[in-house]
Amino acid sequence: MPVKAGIYGATGYTGLELVRLLSQHPQAEITFVTSESSAGGSLRQSWPLAPDLPLISAADAPLNEVDCVFLCLPHTRSAPLAAQALAQGKHVVDLSADLRLDDPAVYQQWYGVAHPNPELLPMPYGLPELGRESLTGATCIANPGCYATATLLALAPLVRAGVLISGAPLIVDAKSGVSGAGRSPKQNILFCEVHGNFSPYNIGRKHRHISEIEQELAKQGHMSGELIFSPHLLPTDRGILATVYAQVTDMDAARDAFDLYTDEPLVNVLPAGELATLAHVVRTPYAALSLTPVSDHILIVVSVLDNLLKGAASEAVQNFNLMYHFAETAGLLPA
Amino acid sequence: MPVKAGIYGATGYTGLELVRLLSQHPQAEITFVTSESSAGGSLRQSWPLAPDLPLISAADAPLNEVDCVFLCLPHTRSAPLAAQALAQGKHVVDLSADLRLDDPAVYQQWYGVAHPNPELLPMPYGLPELGRESLTGATCIANPGCYATATLLALAPLVRAGVLISGAPLIVDAKSGVSGAGRSPKQNILFCEVHGNFSPYNIGRKHRHISEIEQELAKQGHMSGELIFSPHLLPTDRGILATVYAQVTDMDAARDAFDLYTDEPLVNVLPAGELATLAHVVRTPYAALSLTPVSDHILIVVSVLDNLLKGAASEAVQNFNLMYHFAETAGLLPA
Amino acid sequence: MPVKAGIYGATGYTGLELVRLLSQHPQAEITFVTSESSAGGSLRQSWPLAPDLPLISAADAPLNEVDCVFLCLPHTRSAPLAAQALAQGKHVVDLSADLRLDDPAVYQQWYGVAHPNPELLPMPYGLPELGRESLTGATCIANPGCYATATLLALAPLVRAGVLISGAPLIVDAKSGVSGAGRSPKQNILFCEVHGNFSPYNIGRKHRHISEIEQELAKQGHMSGELIFSPHLLPTDRGILATVYAQVTDMDAARDAFDLYTDEPLVNVLPAGELATLAHVVRTPYAALSLTPVSDHILIVVSVLDNLLKGAASEAVQNFNLMYHFAETAGLLPA
Amino acid sequence: MPVKAGIYGATGYTGLELVRLLSQHPQAEITFVTSESSAGGSLRQSWPLAPDLPLISAADAPLNEVDCVFLCLPHTRSAPLAAQALAQGKHVVDLSADLRLDDPAVYQQWYGVAHPNPELLPMPYGLPELGRESLTGATCIANPGCYATATLLALAPLVRAGVLISGAPLIVDAKSGVSGAGRSPKQNILFCEVHGNFSPYNIGRKHRHISEIEQELAKQGHMSGELIFSPHLLPTDRGILATVYAQVTDMDAARDAFDLYTDEPLVNVLPAGELATLAHVVRTPYAALSLTPVSDHILIVVSVLDNLLKGAASEAVQNFNLMYHFAETAGLLPA
Repeated sequence: MPVKAGIYGATGYTGLELVRLLSQHPQAEITFVTSESSAGGSLRQSWPLAPDLPLISAADAPLNEVDCVFLCLPHTRSAPLAAQALAQGKHVVDLSADLRLDDPAVYQQWYGVAHPNPELLPMPYGLPELGRESLTGATCIANPGCYATATLLALAPLVRAGVLISGAPLIVDAKSGVSGAGRSPKQNILFCEVHGNFSPYNIGRKHRHISEIEQELAKQGHMSGELIFSPHLLPTDRGILATVYAQVTDMDAARDAFDLYTDEPLVNVLPAGELATLAHVVRTPYAALSLTPVSDHILIVVSVLDNLLKGAASEAVQNFNLMYHFAETAGLLPA
Repeated sequence: MPVKAGIYGATGYTGLELVRLLSQHPQAEITFVTSESSAGGSLRQSWPLAPDLPLISAADAPLNEVDCVFLCLPHTRSAPLAAQALAQGKHVVDLSADLRLDDPAVYQQWYGVAHPNPELLPMPYGLPELGRESLTGATCIANPGCYATATLLALAPLVRAGVLISGAPLIVDAKSGVSGAGRSPKQNILFCEVHGNFSPYNIGRKHRHISEIEQELAKQGHMSGELIFSPHLLPTDRGILATVYAQVTDMDAARDAFDLYTDEPLVNVLPAGELATLAHVVRTPYAALSLTPVSDHILIVVSVLDNLLKGAASEAVQNFNLMYHFAETAGLLPA
Repeated sequence: MPVKAGIYGATGYTGLELVRLLSQHPQAEITFVTSESSAGGSLRQSWPLAPDLPLISAADAPLNEVDCVFLCLPHTRSAPLAAQALAQGKHVVDLSADLRLDDPAVYQQWYGVAHPNPELLPMPYGLPELGRESLTGATCIANPGCYATATLLALAPLVRAGVLISGAPLIVDAKSGVSGAGRSPKQNILFCEVHGNFSPYNIGRKHRHISEIEQELAKQGHMSGELIFSPHLLPTDRGILATVYAQVTDMDAARDAFDLYTDEPLVNVLPAGELATLAHVVRTPYAALSLTPVSDHILIVVSVLDNLLKGAASEAVQNFNLMYHFAETAGLLPA
Repeated sequence: MPVKAGIYGATGYTGLELVRLLSQHPQAEITFVTSESSAGGSLRQSWPLAPDLPLISAADAPLNEVDCVFLCLPHTRSAPLAAQALAQGKHVVDLSADLRLDDPAVYQQWYGVAHPNPELLPMPYGLPELGRESLTGATCIANPGCYATATLLALAPLVRAGVLISGAPLIVDAKSGVSGAGRSPKQNILFCEVHGNFSPYNIGRKHRHISEIEQELAKQGHMSGELIFSPHLLPTDRGILATVYAQVTDMDAARDAFDLYTDEPLVNVLPAGELATLAHVVRTPYAALSLTPVSDHILIVVSVLDNLLKGAASEAVQNFNLMYHFAETAGLLPA
């Protein structure tokens, strides 16, 4: 019998991808989908290829009829629903930022608001390739941010291997497609503002994903250098490419550190000489990494993924699969 | 002494183009620019290449300090301001739809609301190439719609020459860049909705510009066939291309009808064999037309222009120039 | 045991899509892939998501080891290979234009060259929704052109129902993404030439697909009006949208004519009021149609499909499935 | 009397921009334009907005009729023409890489071929804001590379001020629109390859512009850290954005270093808090820089320009103006 799933916030770009993935998942079925702005309509009105599911308000969702909920909601709105679902014995995959940070004080620092449900913290951080032990059989998982997934996949092996030069800054120059900014109308993501343009934003030490990146890197080992994280908005719809500049003590050891992913079905380390591009990953559940040694001590790692998939919805399905002891790529790759 | 101009609604795409054009106009100077949403800020915050002009609310605009106003406002908000400015003896170029239709009943039919100032109607319709007599020295001019300009330039010569087959439908398949939909945030014009997409809207007999097209064609001569007008949204920022299918009684006479534009500085009829494309006109004050006879009786006219320029702001400057007896291309082409 | 397939011309956009579809087809396996320009390399070098298959020259392809060949080759190069494969008892799906026209004289007229293998003609025309009888169990099928599929799906029901007004022109204003122009480098399809542009080409009666459209419409019934077919190049990668203007004798009968597709799994007639857009079909095997009655006698049909899928590769898989009596959507839709 | 100019290589993107700029230059007139591939045709066939000038082969160009030549030719083809023009007493602005490097051995190292005319070296390097003394009244100027201009404008002030931390790497993460790759058809710059994609290339220490950047920085002062230069291809037509990560000894002194540009008409240092984007510069002769201090010692400089203008054609006009003692912005900004 398939797991019955409810999806909160189904009409955003991530929600729509999640509906698509769960619709074709052999061990899941969608019981309800919610939307505050479009309640009363059909999901198909929101996207021509979406299934014809009725949209209801979150308040009207029959939580008792599902086994698991996926929360594609803004931060601060997600945690209270997670608390409610957990209290009723449901499984939760939270795609917001609410459950990613272990410490509510850090949450307040980066999100500028008190954590709505600090009693829930900490929750397991759902980046399977960096620690699926805590995810297997879990009841609630915090799905990582899209930039965080791309950055952590590039940096964690180096931290874990202990090859980063102490004190040297870690520079992550990241670029994202526009869907990362969501589907709520804002002037800066109108077609005419983005077409023909390319723009940095929140560069340096301002982007909120820095908090989860640093938290998770600290779990992988000692990281002494400052993390500089500079996002840019690309004139395309999907995909993240992070160009990571790392100073390493031993180039061979640095390269070997990526053997970590040898058996991973969804993370590909490209052959030497091939650079990772968005075309490697867009509309797929894969991340890809390329390694370019520049000199004895400088390694450039290019990390790419689809921000809506491996950076959000397909990673959520991976986590769902781990929760229920399903094959980790069920619903993502052909069996 | 330059004409002092006030621009209402300066932070939209058309308003910004108008500011750019008037800033470099040898006989104009900008006295004030208004914006309701950004009053108190600078125009430069609204567009990085705009001049550093203070934005004020329309209510605070010093109407008494200017000679002429340009109204880049939504319909129904424009006419009352036009009335006010005219009452104070100012010149008015209205870029909204409010003053384009001679008959307030037709306005109500197409815009679904009573005309706010029917006493102003009719006003001269500012398409100089089809009748600059009524514009020269005028005090107030209704600037045409972007689609209307492109369509009228293609069809008026045929109507005027009397070569259209009586009763045959006139089919205008039009395509526009996204800036035609304005700069107010709406989901359907978000980057991710338009990128990779192409979509018809309001096809057949629904688009409001049909009303002004039919009104103006009727002034050119007898038009018995039904006008079918089908707009589509292009995944680009600027430009309109209208593919017009006309059935004509005499192909030679139909082609000769376009000699109308022989001496026009801003309308180019392309040499036989060359098709009009957006690249012919985008970011220029020109319209271009190509004529493709298909059979004895079917002529395809492709009409192109930049919707923000010849379809709005540069056409407004043409009209401004006519009002003041300046060279018609002053501020648009090198002297 | 799966059908062993060889794909000629696998590194073009259509060939790559065909590889992708056959790789996941439950009853097919790919035995070889050819490319003249990249022979000796791997298909994966040609596209990062392609499987790692060795590319060989067509001359080196082990024709004897396969059951069926797919020909994604330029016209005139395809027919001789089809003849050779058929002589060896192989099945053939030809995606070029070589086998689409019944009469070699018509081929010469439109393609400007003598047909290389007139003895092969006529072959069944592989548009399943308009006649799958001739395709089921066939040994060789001519896969239709992309524009032809979009246009025929829109017009055939009207011709078959006999509702077109005699003598009235049939106007098809078509727009295609750039992949329709192939993957061989040419200046007019460079990124910088297309981005921000939109351009008509071969409008009127010049595009080669007119020949197959008229041939197939004639088989559906009497068509007396002239077909005007005007293609335009869209600034996007994939998708065709054809806006079809038909004059009909009876609007109700015209609408009912599209009941033809009621049980078709891959052609959707949209509900009244919803217009077909590229977002309905891009990256899917579907075509979609919307019907917009404008007046008593004018019907606008908007027809959309992905030019590389329902306009090429997925239609080829449909035809392959019919050849072998497989479920028609095998490899295209979930079982 | 205007300076008579000949433009070699006028049908490329840079050549077309140069024609446009010189056509409107008050002290220049175009005497001839060359193209090997299109000789015999008109420039207007190459671009719809170009003037109707006859294209001739370089071999047929009447060098004796001009005062000055602009060379928009591939490297190795440019230097011999420069030598020939100089021998006849003409002025030369070379937009190729041939005259940029002082040392022919360095040329051979980076371009993989012996310098065709080593006797010409060194020539003044035409980046006016970093040294217009050597350009004023010069007979021949080497116009800088597009990436080099963007990078040098960001780094030279820091080198000159002596504020870079010794030994720390200088990281330049650069992104360019596709026109930087030229107009000759190649598969990697086809529309369908770039649309929806974003890709790094030649990252680390491979791009040829590194050679001129390092040469010119050395002239500004002592530079001990390694330069890492990573270009990426953006899905847009024009513009370069370089995100530069510099480690500095004194942040206040680092910011003050950019006072260098206070009186520069074509280089804008943006107010604190505003980040440079492509929209600041595309289709203009300006460069813009934003300064973002991240911590005590890390400064991010974002440098933007239009690769075809301030990175090529308008910079060439600046150099032309300096050669002839014209106002430096003649033909670029309103007088």
